[in-house]
Amino acid sequence: MEPIYLDYNATTPLAGEVIEAMRPFLEGHFGNPSSRHAYGHRTRSAVATARRQVADLLGATPGEIVFTGGGSEANNLALTGIARARRSKRDHIVTSAVEHPAVLEVCRYLAANGWRVTRVPVDETGRVDPAEVAKAVTHRTALVSVMHANNEVGTIQPIKAIAEIAHRGGALMHTDAAQSVGKIWARVRDLDVDLLSVAGHKLYGPKGVGALYIRRGTKIERLIHGADHESGLRAGTENVLGLVGLGAACELAGRQLDTRGEHTRRLRDLLYEGLSERVPDTQRNGHPTECLPNTLSLSFRGLDANTLLTEAPEIAASAGAACHSGGTAISATLRAMGVPPIWARGTVRFSTGAQLTAPEVEHAIEVIAAAVEALRARAR
Amino acid sequence: MEPIYLDYNATTPLAGEVIEAMRPFLEGHFGNPSSRHAYGHRTRSAVATARRQVADLLGATPGEIVFTGGGSEANNLALTGIARARRSKRDHIVTSAVEHPAVLEVCRYLAANGWRVTRVPVDETGRVDPAEVAKAVTHRTALVSVMHANNEVGTIQPIKAIAEIAHRGGALMHTDAAQSVGKIWARVRDLDVDLLSVAGHKLYGPKGVGALYIRRGTKIERLIHGADHESGLRAGTENVLGLVGLGAACELAGRQLDTRGEHTRRLRDLLYEGLSERVPDTQRNGHPTECLPNTLSLSFRGLDANTLLTEAPEIAASAGAACHSGGTAISATLRAMGVPPIWARGTVRFSTGAQLTAPEVEHAIEVIAAAVEALRARAR
Repeated sequence: MEPIYLDYNATTPLAGEVIEAMRPFLEGHFGNPSSRHAYGHRTRSAVATARRQVADLLGATPGEIVFTGGGSEANNLALTGIARARRSKRDHIVTSAVEHPAVLEVCRYLAANGWRVTRVPVDETGRVDPAEVAKAVTHRTALVSVMHANNEVGTIQPIKAIAEIAHRGGALMHTDAAQSVGKIWARVRDLDVDLLSVAGHKLYGPKGVGALYIRRGTKIERLIHGADHESGLRAGTENVLGLVGLGAACELAGRQLDTRGEHTRRLRDLLYEGLSERVPDTQRNGHPTECLPNTLSLSFRGLDANTLLTEAPEIAASAGAACHSGGTAISATLRAMGVPPIWARGTVRFSTGAQLTAPEVEHAIEVIAAAVEALRARAR
Repeated sequence: MEPIYLDYNATTPLAGEVIEAMRPFLEGHFGNPSSRHAYGHRTRSAVATARRQVADLLGATPGEIVFTGGGSEANNLALTGIARARRSKRDHIVTSAVEHPAVLEVCRYLAANGWRVTRVPVDETGRVDPAEVAKAVTHRTALVSVMHANNEVGTIQPIKAIAEIAHRGGALMHTDAAQSVGKIWARVRDLDVDLLSVAGHKLYGPKGVGALYIRRGTKIERLIHGADHESGLRAGTENVLGLVGLGAACELAGRQLDTRGEHTRRLRDLLYEGLSERVPDTQRNGHPTECLPNTLSLSFRGLDANTLLTEAPEIAASAGAACHSGGTAISATLRAMGVPPIWARGTVRFSTGAQLTAPEVEHAIEVIAAAVEALRARAR
């Protein structure tokens, strides 16, 4: 039997509708969208449809969407592209202490190459206080980059308030929305952002494809040079198969977001209630209300999360953030939130999703409770 | 009826074997390769297999292969990565006049940012004379980048001889092999290169996925920063579906390269003989022997290539290089070869491939000959 999948923040299965949209491009249509013959027309038009589908979900226009090879590339393009374009007048970047490595590491690269970077702290719920951003922004600030929702604990940031501060200081506003798009509404006008990153494989679309929203008129340098694809902003023959999938996933998210949100919230709450009732010495991390509906970061006091997951192979969940797991070092996010090590080391990220069912959650509760009990009994 | 596809250098259909290899990853296996549970094991192992398949075709080791979002990204990583890593001691790049935009434009970017770039000329067959490279390389040369085979005219460059000159001067050697891999052998030890770029969609694999061979021990800076994917050299969740396809395409190429080469050469020669017999005032561009077996760059004197292709919609071929077509400007490659405008403007690139048949070629000859005749009659 397959393990119960409780790791939708690491990646999602493809939605059935996405598979069906992609199939003709796996089995048939193969033209290069730059070709001027019939083979090219067909895939060029498929890419245009995908661009409109992504734009519609974000409330943007198709011309404001640049396709990339994933969320990480979108973040790299946003940060280095704006930093380089504005360098002569503004050489300062403001970001938060809980960003994904695809933002943090770009900031580290920029800091090593002459830019100044300020990382604003978060409170114990993982939230950035806009007042901290206001303290950090100066007349030299080119860009403020704060994620929409945290991948580990699910905390949703007050992006609109932060964007207002950024704009007041003449800075642009970027948000890494890889973890939020498809789970909650992420409309660029509501958030008032200038740039927003999307990752296909977090919203029931394929891996290796993403998008960057760039507000019309924003000056940005490209990251990948070459031919004039993506309005000259990202060279490389289009990943037609992947883009068709990304477009279909966005179209589906637009239709199903609210019911999907309710479904995942119900199962997440069921999981939390079951575990907190059955297992002593647990603690939930993140913001009590401003949180992704599907995410439960739960700490089991005194345990090691990897040991716990090894003890319960019927469960697929994450210790730390699974995009880049491996060590048992305490995650930067939990550290920034001030979670004490005795809790942080035993933190599991459970994330629910569209294909999960209530009986699976009930079973998961039993399995996890038994595993915790066994480990704690052994330690006594 | 579908037009006869004579544009395999623009992109190739997926091979049947590639489709079958990819299907389970479209319909089922979806785990994040970084996840430590069973879902992750399966895709991690699929990525490892793909890496071995690519390495095998190139005669490299799996640890020397970095996956990218396509050939353009591979070229960008190679050029900017080496240029940045060696900048303090060596700030000079040598390349040729007939490179793909994904090399030429990166060189333009580097030239605008403090590097010196020398573009060596080609002769009338499109070939680089290694003696020209020897004249260009200095003790400040970080990298020599010359394509393995030209996308427009098919001319194969003397990479091994150029690499020897590069190495003698302490420079590294990169070759953009996007157009050669899968058509002719491109073994890194035979070519003696330090870096080699691959594009999946040129060898019956998917679009949006590629690879860069980096010889073990080569110091290079990354292009996309973030988590530690690809040995820390390229952040971003792996495009599992695409990589499985790229691996299968490489595995297939290794088995079929010689017969595929014979098949495409036979049909290319059939096309050339038919057209040169039927149509007056034609001229073939490229090297008579050192040429990709599938490529025929043919100039129709006094015609405009786009007009010709519009006149013959039953034929899918390229005026110029289809990865980045659009204008009717004379291609940089033909200009560098000294093809006179009266010929260059009427140049069509025909490229044959695995799924093409002799009857299709016979029919194509009739259609093209009739179209040329009609256009020339109208012009009289």
